[in-house]
Amino acid sequence: MFHVLLGTAIVASSFTASASFAAAATEEKVDLELITRLRDEAMNRSKAQEIFGVLTDEIGPRLTGSPALRKASEWTRSKFSEWGLQNVHSESFAPFGRGWTLEKTTLRMVSPSQFDVYAIPKAWTPGTDGMQRGKLMIAKMLADEDLAKWKGKLAGAIVLLDEPLPIKPHMKADAHRYSHEELDELTKVDFEAAPSRRGDLPTYIKQLAFRKKLRTFLTEEKVLAALNVTRGEDGTIFVQEGGSYKKDEATGPANLVVASETYNRLYRLVEKKKDVELEIDIKARFNDEDPEAAINVLAEIPGTDKKDEIVMLGAHLDSWHGGTGATDNAAGVAMVMEAVRLLKVSGFKPRRTIRIALWGGEEQGLLGSRAYVNKWVASRPEPTDPKELELPSFARKLTGPMSVKPMHGKISAYFNLDNGGGKIRGIYAENNAAVKPIFDAWLAPFNDVGATTTTLRSTGSTDHVSFDRVGVPGFQFVQDDMDYFSRTHHSSMDLYDKVQKSDLTQASLVLASFVAHTANRNDMLPRKPLPKDPPAEEKKEDGKETTASADGKK
Amino acid sequence: MFHVLLGTAIVASSFTASASFAAAATEEKVDLELITRLRDEAMNRSKAQEIFGVLTDEIGPRLTGSPALRKASEWTRSKFSEWGLQNVHSESFAPFGRGWTLEKTTLRMVSPSQFDVYAIPKAWTPGTDGMQRGKLMIAKMLADEDLAKWKGKLAGAIVLLDEPLPIKPHMKADAHRYSHEELDELTKVDFEAAPSRRGDLPTYIKQLAFRKKLRTFLTEEKVLAALNVTRGEDGTIFVQEGGSYKKDEATGPANLVVASETYNRLYRLVEKKKDVELEIDIKARFNDEDPEAAINVLAEIPGTDKKDEIVMLGAHLDSWHGGTGATDNAAGVAMVMEAVRLLKVSGFKPRRTIRIALWGGEEQGLLGSRAYVNKWVASRPEPTDPKELELPSFARKLTGPMSVKPMHGKISAYFNLDNGGGKIRGIYAENNAAVKPIFDAWLAPFNDVGATTTTLRSTGSTDHVSFDRVGVPGFQFVQDDMDYFSRTHHSSMDLYDKVQKSDLTQASLVLASFVAHTANRNDMLPRKPLPKDPPAEEKKEDGKETTASADGKK
Repeated sequence: MFHVLLGTAIVASSFTASASFAAAATEEKVDLELITRLRDEAMNRSKAQEIFGVLTDEIGPRLTGSPALRKASEWTRSKFSEWGLQNVHSESFAPFGRGWTLEKTTLRMVSPSQFDVYAIPKAWTPGTDGMQRGKLMIAKMLADEDLAKWKGKLAGAIVLLDEPLPIKPHMKADAHRYSHEELDELTKVDFEAAPSRRGDLPTYIKQLAFRKKLRTFLTEEKVLAALNVTRGEDGTIFVQEGGSYKKDEATGPANLVVASETYNRLYRLVEKKKDVELEIDIKARFNDEDPEAAINVLAEIPGTDKKDEIVMLGAHLDSWHGGTGATDNAAGVAMVMEAVRLLKVSGFKPRRTIRIALWGGEEQGLLGSRAYVNKWVASRPEPTDPKELELPSFARKLTGPMSVKPMHGKISAYFNLDNGGGKIRGIYAENNAAVKPIFDAWLAPFNDVGATTTTLRSTGSTDHVSFDRVGVPGFQFVQDDMDYFSRTHHSSMDLYDKVQKSDLTQASLVLASFVAHTANRNDMLPRKPLPKDPPAEEKKEDGKETTASADGKK
Repeated sequence: MFHVLLGTAIVASSFTASASFAAAATEEKVDLELITRLRDEAMNRSKAQEIFGVLTDEIGPRLTGSPALRKASEWTRSKFSEWGLQNVHSESFAPFGRGWTLEKTTLRMVSPSQFDVYAIPKAWTPGTDGMQRGKLMIAKMLADEDLAKWKGKLAGAIVLLDEPLPIKPHMKADAHRYSHEELDELTKVDFEAAPSRRGDLPTYIKQLAFRKKLRTFLTEEKVLAALNVTRGEDGTIFVQEGGSYKKDEATGPANLVVASETYNRLYRLVEKKKDVELEIDIKARFNDEDPEAAINVLAEIPGTDKKDEIVMLGAHLDSWHGGTGATDNAAGVAMVMEAVRLLKVSGFKPRRTIRIALWGGEEQGLLGSRAYVNKWVASRPEPTDPKELELPSFARKLTGPMSVKPMHGKISAYFNLDNGGGKIRGIYAENNAAVKPIFDAWLAPFNDVGATTTTLRSTGSTDHVSFDRVGVPGFQFVQDDMDYFSRTHHSSMDLYDKVQKSDLTQASLVLASFVAHTANRNDMLPRKPLPKDPPAEEKKEDGKETTASADGKK
């Protein structure tokens, strides 16, 4: 057995045959016998890459609302049942909106010379009516006055909306693993640096409104297609949504993101007054609301003496469409699925119930995990300010009072994996100082595979936030970022080969151990205080006092 | 005036108003006044990037034999005439063979799901007869016995010929500039490390023969298309020829190089026994022999008192087709064109004639520069051994005797630029020890812009070799390699944005100065001994003694 003295760096190691869990005020026990069994299964019989291969190569990109996400839901549930998990089911968070599937993209310059343009349509934008041909024009539109300027001049044209991307030599490696020094730096907290969830909101709101207006304008002006430049280089294209998944919102015309070096070439040719013509043929299929394609998938390993209490682990099943959603987030799904498989086949008997969640709608603003938390854990009233309602839900001011449901007090922790396909190097403790020594003790047996660091820092932009913001301990692991930001995140290169088998295996192992130790600890994990009421000026207009509401924490 | 004492590192600087050139046994004079004028023009009014933009963005890829190379020939000659150069003309090295132009590529998976496959046809491979659909099969064929195995089984199929590409995280930067230490290392010569031009010839000959056989086999078996994997990643595709430019040689069926991550995905799906179907629509145009598309372009600034002697500078105008031939070698062409423009507008009066050469057919084995050298400088008899005749000309054993033409003794030096789009960091002196102190002196005024290093090492694979191998001083500069080998060399990413304006400007300036100093030096540059006879066993069968023949130098 492996003991870590709280608050110190001194580690003492001992072993008992029973390898049982025991509570103590000053030490955190670690079940090394269980870890050995998990480690054996992970090292020698890991299924993580196999699961990852089905999600990416076979099912492909899994846009929320689309048939592929329904398929992923069906397949993951079938795996959970096959492994003997209990209470396997999906929960829909519909109404979501329409689905969208890309079927075909052809874009090429046909005059003054001929070449194929590498481009990917944005999600929820329409196809063309078969093969079309249009004159290429530069038409920058950033504000209302630009629309007035271009009115009546763009019919049948393909327009370049962006400036060319300035391209500089890549003197820095695309991929990165944390050094010891960088991990050490990560444990340092700067109160001033805390990011605001609503920091650049005025700009964001303005852009959002203009983009909607622009879509309608481009359709009214009968623009054949609109082209944007990617921030990627070397053939890598970053692409998200163009139109809206909401049924009553305009999609605009066909809208593609073009490989930067080629976009720049097209732009320069038009700038030189060449008559540039492109041929375009896009086929994209919308589908109506499918409740089974707007889902969370859930399954359990039931607990024993503390079975009403829960430890959760999760990752999001949905993805963008440019690649196959490999690092974002089939990798996380494979890691969490493999973690529960490791626990199941190792014969581990959890005291608390282990619940795995595969979320949908994460890419549209944590929709799945927020719906789950709202329904089962804690909810807040809808805002009444019409301006707030125009915003996407993640950007709205928090409201109060928070209504706490029975499950709120039963979830010991939620563990999330969604920072790419890299292995686990540590965990973000989300300013919960009391969990740091516990996590340090749980990481100690995995120092040799690179997992070492608990930082009190918080991190955002993924599903643990849905739990953290209602006061339930929610954690995201620190993962090697690899080429997540340079190459794969929401890009055409988010593909199977970008994730290393050994990283999948390591992460599933560390996660399995964290979940097991959370499940069998005598006490639930320590919590932070409940989120505070919003400041007075953010309270609801009826002036009622709120009881348990949340601050503006990212 | 700038003096460098021969064989020492001591540099003395002085200045005379006339800035004339003077010969001295122990010093190499440098015309700093001229350099100041060249530098002013290069820094403030460079046309290098503009020239580069026309060649890449406008004319596009310039495959030998194709209309685009003819167009490039016409445009460069018009520029030379506009600048007031003399004797502007092209010389054809036809018969070359057929030209080839890619017009359209569509490849996508249509079953079991749908996605666009990023792929580029190999040069001189045919299109498909409109849109076709075929089953995808893995069919590795590396030797005759594989052909027997697959006979009768591939009709209508699209075949994956290669194993998947193993893909590892990119922990090293794509782009690179030489450090001082690396340049210093480059000056060290290891006699053991001299590469052999015919080193792995048996393997090469075997592969060449099998590839021809495979093309015919694939056509006979009615294969719809063959797919290879690129060595590139992230959407970068490296692609050269598939079929042959020789009219009587088989092209095989459509043959494409596929982006590696996607090739790997297709391969894994077939390996998992999925029924994979692809749709393919390739349009490629062959054109018959066009003598004006198999050319070298030549132009001169006539000399004065030594006008019968010549200094040459050159780069190759032809390219592969995957990108726009930017770093290979529109950059070199822009640098050499800008160098002569700098000399012309600076009012420089050369004593020797300056001749610029833009070569065709470099990518098919230095065809243009070899034809030029054969015709004007020195030639060797065709080999009589039928096995040698089967080889591409650059791989054949040298024959003797070498016939030396009048121009052989008149070319002081040939300077080449074809190591990508990076700036000049030095020059390869090709084991000619006597030129090292001269080049060191000429580099000294450009140390501040990074050009510092003369190495006695030799380098190959481009057009200076055609001169060096007949005993005429031929030199290639050391250039920062940037992302030439990782991204741009013979790839889809060989595009305008991959070359920095400042690198084009620097290289054209340094080259202009080298050419000027070669032109106005009292003596021609020192030469190496004439290439030796081939060893006795390589002599022609009639036993005649050869007089001036060549050894097998790299």
